[in-house]
Amino acid sequence: MLKGFTAPRSPRGAAALVPSPPWHFAGDVLAVEFWNDPDVSVDILPTGVQLDEKCPGHSVALFTDYQFTAQGDEYLDPARYQCRGFSVLLDAMWQGTRIAWCPYCYVDNDAALMRGWIQGYPRKFGAVHQTRSFPTMGVASAPLAHDSRFSACMSAHGRLLVQARVTLRERAERLVGLLDRRIVGRRYLPRVSAGMHDRPAVDELVRSVSDHLLTTNIWIGEGELDFPEAYGEELEVLGPVRVGRGYRFSFSYSVTDIEILADLTP
Amino acid sequence: MLKGFTAPRSPRGAAALVPSPPWHFAGDVLAVEFWNDPDVSVDILPTGVQLDEKCPGHSVALFTDYQFTAQGDEYLDPARYQCRGFSVLLDAMWQGTRIAWCPYCYVDNDAALMRGWIQGYPRKFGAVHQTRSFPTMGVASAPLAHDSRFSACMSAHGRLLVQARVTLRERAERLVGLLDRRIVGRRYLPRVSAGMHDRPAVDELVRSVSDHLLTTNIWIGEGELDFPEAYGEELEVLGPVRVGRGYRFSFSYSVTDIEILADLTP
Amino acid sequence: MLKGFTAPRSPRGAAALVPSPPWHFAGDVLAVEFWNDPDVSVDILPTGVQLDEKCPGHSVALFTDYQFTAQGDEYLDPARYQCRGFSVLLDAMWQGTRIAWCPYCYVDNDAALMRGWIQGYPRKFGAVHQTRSFPTMGVASAPLAHDSRFSACMSAHGRLLVQARVTLRERAERLVGLLDRRIVGRRYLPRVSAGMHDRPAVDELVRSVSDHLLTTNIWIGEGELDFPEAYGEELEVLGPVRVGRGYRFSFSYSVTDIEILADLTP
Amino acid sequence: MLKGFTAPRSPRGAAALVPSPPWHFAGDVLAVEFWNDPDVSVDILPTGVQLDEKCPGHSVALFTDYQFTAQGDEYLDPARYQCRGFSVLLDAMWQGTRIAWCPYCYVDNDAALMRGWIQGYPRKFGAVHQTRSFPTMGVASAPLAHDSRFSACMSAHGRLLVQARVTLRERAERLVGLLDRRIVGRRYLPRVSAGMHDRPAVDELVRSVSDHLLTTNIWIGEGELDFPEAYGEELEVLGPVRVGRGYRFSFSYSVTDIEILADLTP
Repeated sequence: MLKGFTAPRSPRGAAALVPSPPWHFAGDVLAVEFWNDPDVSVDILPTGVQLDEKCPGHSVALFTDYQFTAQGDEYLDPARYQCRGFSVLLDAMWQGTRIAWCPYCYVDNDAALMRGWIQGYPRKFGAVHQTRSFPTMGVASAPLAHDSRFSACMSAHGRLLVQARVTLRERAERLVGLLDRRIVGRRYLPRVSAGMHDRPAVDELVRSVSDHLLTTNIWIGEGELDFPEAYGEELEVLGPVRVGRGYRFSFSYSVTDIEILADLTP
Repeated sequence: MLKGFTAPRSPRGAAALVPSPPWHFAGDVLAVEFWNDPDVSVDILPTGVQLDEKCPGHSVALFTDYQFTAQGDEYLDPARYQCRGFSVLLDAMWQGTRIAWCPYCYVDNDAALMRGWIQGYPRKFGAVHQTRSFPTMGVASAPLAHDSRFSACMSAHGRLLVQARVTLRERAERLVGLLDRRIVGRRYLPRVSAGMHDRPAVDELVRSVSDHLLTTNIWIGEGELDFPEAYGEELEVLGPVRVGRGYRFSFSYSVTDIEILADLTP
Repeated sequence: MLKGFTAPRSPRGAAALVPSPPWHFAGDVLAVEFWNDPDVSVDILPTGVQLDEKCPGHSVALFTDYQFTAQGDEYLDPARYQCRGFSVLLDAMWQGTRIAWCPYCYVDNDAALMRGWIQGYPRKFGAVHQTRSFPTMGVASAPLAHDSRFSACMSAHGRLLVQARVTLRERAERLVGLLDRRIVGRRYLPRVSAGMHDRPAVDELVRSVSDHLLTTNIWIGEGELDFPEAYGEELEVLGPVRVGRGYRFSFSYSVTDIEILADLTP
Repeated sequence: MLKGFTAPRSPRGAAALVPSPPWHFAGDVLAVEFWNDPDVSVDILPTGVQLDEKCPGHSVALFTDYQFTAQGDEYLDPARYQCRGFSVLLDAMWQGTRIAWCPYCYVDNDAALMRGWIQGYPRKFGAVHQTRSFPTMGVASAPLAHDSRFSACMSAHGRLLVQARVTLRERAERLVGLLDRRIVGRRYLPRVSAGMHDRPAVDELVRSVSDHLLTTNIWIGEGELDFPEAYGEELEVLGPVRVGRGYRFSFSYSVTDIEILADLTP
């Protein structure tokens, strides 16, 4: 009897790329809000999802630096289960509900790549880095303090795709205007069978369900953001025409469920 | 209208992790035949697949070093589309037909990881290397010649999983006793919806269909092979109790189709 | 006029692999004290350095996860200047002074590799990981608390070289019995000129001089440590016959100087 | 008695990052000749080296994909000793002799990084890729044939630094106008001792001495080349104002010696 939440399924279930939910995450975030051109960014939305008319083109560039664990003490296997990621989230609407649409997402780890595909995040491999803050003061440790600066960048296959900078201005009690929408993505698995290449086996709009979301050490300031053009990518099409606030905070949350909004399978 | 064979689907279709088939491959192979313990390796087979009674436990460890292209001159983007892989193939039977069952497969590239999942190969990320042969003679260039030695290895997340050695003995006209079975794998996409974690959205046995398979520079010799034990993997369970011939050759082939043998979706 | 502290020297001095000191570091440390066999570890010492008779074979395995900066805001270029490292430090004596001899050192970054060679650390490339602690509580965030567990590992070229575990037991005010000796290494640059391969151009014993060393969040507990045998390495020769305490803390310090203890150039 | 050609020196000498010469290399090269602005590129030359008045600004961008071995069958350890590199070579003169000055050089391997520093190549870490040609025909295998195209690129820390393309036009018997000058670099090891940061311990101009250079499968065609601007690099300063021929060939050679042209140590 083969075991394992994902392939490769195996006798003990230890070889699976991703263990069974619940999945737990803890990490740091650097985020920059921005506006892209709604006449352009509307083209990234699937059928049934619209731009949010109240804030057309309002988006977030989100860099994460985190640790993962499930039921097997995966956080004690840091070579395999630490991860850094980058996502674009676009303010959108689904049947009257405010959502954050995730058109692009990059991670630096194979388990995270696969978790993403299972959850509807269209992940590709990217090298993601952000300035870190360490508890001990010193010139090399970006402090959580007024005027402190943090950088982040993401590249894929040797091409720089995103560059960001946040200058902290003030501490905040809560995350206001950020991550206040459920993230919606698309689970999509194509078929390779001849004649079926445009008839996916799975095509669903799914909404993430996060439990126990905690945020701490929240700082807000000014953001800078750039999406350089790169061959083989379309990220720059969603690039900023205006940049807003920057955010830096720590988080933890869990995932045990996703909600299927629509089955688009033909 | 979003385009792209896989996610991320995008306005121009250039962002998709994997382009549409036909897919074309060309590369070098180092392979070692071996026998594992059939009483143990039988446990890696899914329902409906049996060991081949005529050669119980006979398997192949296959290292590939190759270039990929589809319709977009992908071979001119070598940072993204060159790949190295490792697979285990186990002689098996499906409804009276001889097949090669693929329980484990590793690659070093995100596009290859995803192509694998779409085709039913249970790929994880691995760092794969094999000794190369260059046209110019010299001490550093392993020649295609009697007594020439080639090594290969695969590691994942800093743990060595496979080590192999082939000593060439004689040139052959054809690949006899190797890759003479269609490879069968399992397309498997789990659900994250609460209560559905053991009810996959897709669970199919699929058989690869390769076109235009060419092999050249075929050499046969003696193989050595070891699967060191490693935390978080079960590869060593299929490890060799006996090792047979080693092979080194170059190949090219194309993929436009897979054949669905069985739909196991509950 | 070419500029730059190291090669490549260039018109603006921006291309140099390593910027001029002072160098500043901030990060986290996971450390395990252990004893190797003094009859064996004595062979790793250069002329003039002896084992410390008061604690023969007492050593430290040190994992670091840190950020670097010099005068150019290098901490805002995280893809280039964040680093993870592993060192072995062996209690030793130099002319009556207690020192920590560094026989082996690994880092995951080219600038750190070169800084090491300049400072007398015999660095090679390694992939180094340690469990992280994040400010927000949650199952995935190893807390700084009694019984909390941290792992670390180091591999090079796909071979696991070190594995460690620390279980925290109590918070401490100061680092007692750890890093209380100046680190001594060997600056060594061989010649390639024919007939001169064993006559190095530079061969010096050097002692590190650190300024402004701060440590915080110090926790002490139990350590576990293993140096698996690996081809092309001799680390396992210094492996633990007994393992002692484990440590986890954060640090910052600066470097502007090293002290040349002896010029061994023939 | 410690052994090893480089640090780390160890009891058996197996831990050294680089084994003793002779060193042997075999691989493939993609090269593009180009001209940079001599009024600008003159600034990259050290004292005593001049531009070649007969071909001011004439340079070569050289991509290599190779295997290394010394006396220890290193080519059978492919994870450690295969390497890809990129160099710029600038036509120059040293005391009336035609030389190729190497201002910048990148490799993807720690042993190659260190070999470079020992030989006077100012190496940094870069990810280097070039289109490969495989023996078996097929759409994915760039053939060695008229109109066949090859790409190459180099990036460091996620920033694209060089992009090249070569379209083959005709086979050649010999390499004419390429690699017909001895390569000269600078061995440079700074001091960290306070007050000595601008007084290197080693500062020598050295000329490479290669034995047994063989080239084969030489093709000549048209080149394309671009050095995109990137933070923390000065490569773009030497970028092409005009691009010439492209080359693709295989090579092997050995190194046992370098020649010290001048000792610049203050």
